Order: sequence, then structure tokens, then C-alpha cells
Amino acid sequence: MGKDRGLKMRIGIDIGGMTIKIGLVEGADIIARKVIETNSKSQTPEALIKNMAVATAELLQENNLAEDSSAKITVGIACPGTVDPAKGIVLYSNNIAWEDVPIVALFKKQMPAAVALANDADAAALGEVLYGAAAGKNNAILLTLGTGVGGGVIMNKKIFSGYMRGGCELGHTVIDRNGKLCTCGRRGCLEVYASATALMQAARKAAAEQASSLMNVFCRNDLSKLNGKIVFDAQKQGDMAAARVIDEYEENLSIGIANIVNIFRPEVVILGGGVSAQKEVLTEELQKRVAGMCFGAEHGDVPAIVTSQLGNDAGIIGAAHLID
Amino acid sequence: MGKDRGLKMRIGIDIGGMTIKIGLVEGADIIARKVIETNSKSQTPEALIKNMAVATAELLQENNLAEDSSAKITVGIACPGTVDPAKGIVLYSNNIAWEDVPIVALFKKQMPAAVALANDADAAALGEVLYGAAAGKNNAILLTLGTGVGGGVIMNKKIFSGYMRGGCELGHTVIDRNGKLCTCGRRGCLEVYASATALMQAARKAAAEQASSLMNVFCRNDLSKLNGKIVFDAQKQGDMAAARVIDEYEENLSIGIANIVNIFRPEVVILGGGVSAQKEVLTEELQKRVAGMCFGAEHGDVPAIVTSQLGNDAGIIGAAHLID
Repeated sequence: MGKDRGLKMRIGIDIGGMTIKIGLVEGADIIARKVIETNSKSQTPEALIKNMAVATAELLQENNLAEDSSAKITVGIACPGTVDPAKGIVLYSNNIAWEDVPIVALFKKQMPAAVALANDADAAALGEVLYGAAAGKNNAILLTLGTGVGGGVIMNKKIFSGYMRGGCELGHTVIDRNGKLCTCGRRGCLEVYASATALMQAARKAAAEQASSLMNVFCRNDLSKLNGKIVFDAQKQGDMAAARVIDEYEENLSIGIANIVNIFRPEVVILGGGVSAQKEVLTEELQKRVAGMCFGAEHGDVPAIVTSQLGNDAGIIGAAHLID
Repeated sequence: MGKDRGLKMRIGIDIGGMTIKIGLVEGADIIARKVIETNSKSQTPEALIKNMAVATAELLQENNLAEDSSAKITVGIACPGTVDPAKGIVLYSNNIAWEDVPIVALFKKQMPAAVALANDADAAALGEVLYGAAAGKNNAILLTLGTGVGGGVIMNKKIFSGYMRGGCELGHTVIDRNGKLCTCGRRGCLEVYASATALMQAARKAAAEQASSLMNVFCRNDLSKLNGKIVFDAQKQGDMAAARVIDEYEENLSIGIANIVNIFRPEVVILGGGVSAQKEVLTEELQKRVAGMCFGAEHGDVPAIVTSQLGNDAGIIGAAHLID
């Protein structure tokens, strides 16, 4: 990591299922942004990547950065799915229905810049370590608790993703060998218990079984309107059904975090995704539980559990800093 | 890793609960050995480390290596438990009842050599990658299936042990959140299902419940004489009780291996410890099961599952190569 990190102008691109967010980044700041629609199903990867490059060029021009200066500008792309950063290829991405797309080469065809690629959770984790919840630390794990459970591992301020493709799938580690079926085909993956989806499923079931639960009141008896905030709000007001759902959720998440701690022993565990909006309400309870679960906790070290600081910008900021 | 690795004379020391094995190592070969008793309960760490150094000096002399050449000789020490390689301290080792022992500094007081320290499973994993079951590869995981389940992770030909102390405890990752109690205090750790101890417990229970099982015949109805070989031999001869025990064991071990693969994606998974004596009988079955469990196996890569080649010498050989 060069000492001048943050002084250069950088582009960070975060590809999502719905939109692609492009940011002009200086250090921790996104100076200017542009958003284009992903539409990955109605256009070829080539066409979409061209649109990304055009939007990037526009963003540079709008900010008085001549196109020929793009040679000095680094571009980092964060993409969901399994990627090969060394080869610059998106191997497989369910969200955007891509397979074997040489995104780096295709982008460079459009714009003569230094371009790097990373998995989106990895990029977000790097962003949080460099400028967010783990700033000042060198070793952290990001768990995103959203539709699924994503994971990004930063060791020594660098993305760690294992050796062969498909590594660091922290959500796809089994914590209950006879448990619920996961989308990956196995039973009892962490994702099945610790995703926001899992929390909502459990809450809907509990609310349906317990008509008097405040969860039903707060969503006006329309369980399709139930959300994470409602579950935590109901718990805070003493609702037992919500409390049981959250207790079970936190226990399972703690088991997953402790497993990860027993492997990576990071300095910080960062929680992102929808559920992390609960901040200390969530982390204080997790910290207590995880402390009791880490191997040799009395002789070892228990990392701090915190929530994301950069939120949805973590991917852009991390991507912008993929190249030193 | 220098090109001349293997040309230098190196000392590898493997500390066990009963004995300390010292080897004079050249490349993959242990040219000469010395074994002393550990007796860690009847003497201070200082006294034991002095004995280690004395035995090492004798080994050098017996092999016509003058004591003053020890400055050119590197010493690597493999120790069970939680160690801090950077500081050269054994933080905590249950097997030898040590706590916070600055083993590197104490050894250097006795002998002016370059001395390095590693956890014993880590050292064994390094040995297997450099000269054993994963020779020619750079990324491998060693799982030792013995009294417990130990783990050693080698990434890019270097020991990976996480950041803070107590990392890479692969045996202490929960695969069954409501499962059996582990010595570490949690429920359902991989160690509870995949250790040799676990296999024997399950086999003894099954044999006791099924009087007609060949396992009872093979150990002459003395279940204290039951061992891993008997269980696998009974299975090979069609014994259903043994087959069920092994099926369950292999399924749990596969779950643990797939979890580790989904994190580290190594090129090779090496099995060591008593159970690994079954070689292909074990690995062929595991390979099939794990292939179906790895995340995105159709798009990712599934590592080869093999058994240890260096066996009990892996620790000495790996320790001898801790210093480049």
C-alpha cells in the first residue's frame, strides 16, 4: 500500500443486480457518482461493459478530467459472484447471469486505464478496512447479512480469497449438518440461518403462529410488510415471539462468527447488509456470545464485532482502491 | 523460498506429549535423529529446553558438524498448542502444560543458531507441501485425525495461521450447532465427529449394541482392543454395523472438509493422523462426497484429497524448513 493512497483519482464501479454504481473516489470520499441500469438480461456482457465505460468517461469529463488522463486513473470493478481477479474474468455470477466474462479486457478495450476486478463482498471488505469500520486495522472479515450471507476477508490489508476459484464463501459453511436446505444444495449452511432472508422467514413464521405478537400489530397484520426493523422494535417492547426469533438468529450468527474467528482470528468482524442497521443492539449481544465461543478465548484474542460504516458505498470505495 | 532450499543442513525439532524428536534434515531426508523424553511435568520449561539444546548439539557433533558451525545451522521447533511464531513464544500448550514460554529465546541462550517456532500441525503441513503429499503444490490444508482434529494451512508455500493468536483451529468449527459437547466448550465441533477418538467411540457403541458385529469378533469381545483398522476391516467384510459407523464418520468429515474448501480452496487436502492409514479406502469415498458439497463445484475447483506421505516425520521435516 503506497503512502500516497488516497491522493490519486480513482474510479470504483460496483455492479449490482439492478444498478451499476460508478464513483470518482479520492481517499475515502466519493466526489462524484453515476448510476446506470444493469439490464444484464436484455443486453450482452459486451454491450453492458461498453455502457459502463461510456458512463465512466462521462463521469471523468463532467469532473473536468480529460479523457487522456484516464491512463493515470485506475479503475476497480466489484462484481457479485465468483471472479478470477488475476485473469480479470467473471467466472460465474448468478445475480447478473454472466459466465466466463473477461470483464477487465473488455473494459480496457473501451478505455485505456489500469483496471482491476474483485468480488463485491471482497471489495466492500477492503473499503471498510481502508476507510470504514476497520480503519487503522489490517485484518478484518466482512459478513454481509442480506439476501444471502456474503463474506470478504482482508488479511494484512489485502483481499484474501483462498487459492482456487470459489474460496471464502463464508456463508456456505455448514453449521447444522442436518439442518435446512441451502440454495447451494447442502444442508445447514450459515446462510440459511444468518441471512436477512432467514431472519424474515423465521419472524413471519413466528408472527403467524402467535396472533398476539406485536410483529402483527406493527405490520398491520400484513406479514408481507414485515421487515427487520419491525422484528427488533417488537423485541425492544418486550414481544416474546420476536425475542425468540432474534435470540435464535443471534445464536446462529454467533456460531458462524466464532467458526470464522477460530480460522482467521481477525482484529475486527464487520457486519454489513440490512440486518446491520441494528448496530449496537446487534453487535453488543453478538460480542458477548462470540467471546464465550472462541477457541481458547481465555488465552486467545476475541475480535471486535462492529457494523459497516460505509454501507452501500463500501463496494465503490474498496473497488477504487484495488490498485495501489 | 530460496532456490537452495534443501542444500543447507537444518535441524527440525518436534515436541510431543511423550517425546521430543530431533532430526538433522537435508531437503526431504532426515539424516540423523535423536529422541529425548518430554517429561514436561517433572521439569521446568527452561530445563527441558536446555535438554533439547544439549541433544541438538550432540546430534551435530555425532554427525561431524562442529559446534561452531551451528551459527550456520537453522533450527525449527514444532510445538503443540497455541504459539506466537513472530515472538517465538508458546502461549499455551495443553499437551505439555506450558504457558507463555519464550522457547526461541531460551533455546538461543543455549545455542547460537537461527531458531524459528511453529505450531506442530502447521509445521507438518509445511513438510507435506514441500516434500510430501502436496509436493509441487503451493496451497494445501492438512487435517490430522487423531485424538483431536488439528489443522495446518499452507497458502503460497507459507504457513497461514490467521492474524491474532488462536487461528486456524479447523477442528474447532461447529458443523452441528446442537451436537455433542466438545472439549472446547462448544457443541458440535468438527473434532467431535472427525477425530480418531470420535470414530472409536462410535464404533465401540455400535459393537456393543450389535453383538453379532464382526467388530466384536475381530477384537475378541474386548472392546478396549478395538482400533480403526478393525472397524475398516469389518466394513470390508460386509459388517453392517461397521459400515454405518464409517458412513457417518465419512459424511461428517466430508462436511468439515467441504467447509474448509469453501473457505481456502486449496489445491490439496491432506489427511494425517491414525485414521489416514486407510489411505485410498478413505480418500476415494471422501473425494466423491466432497465434490458434491463444494460451493459452485460445477464452476469451481475441487481439491484432491490425499493422505499424508511423511507421517510422523512431517513435523520434523516441516520444522527444519521454517527458516528459508
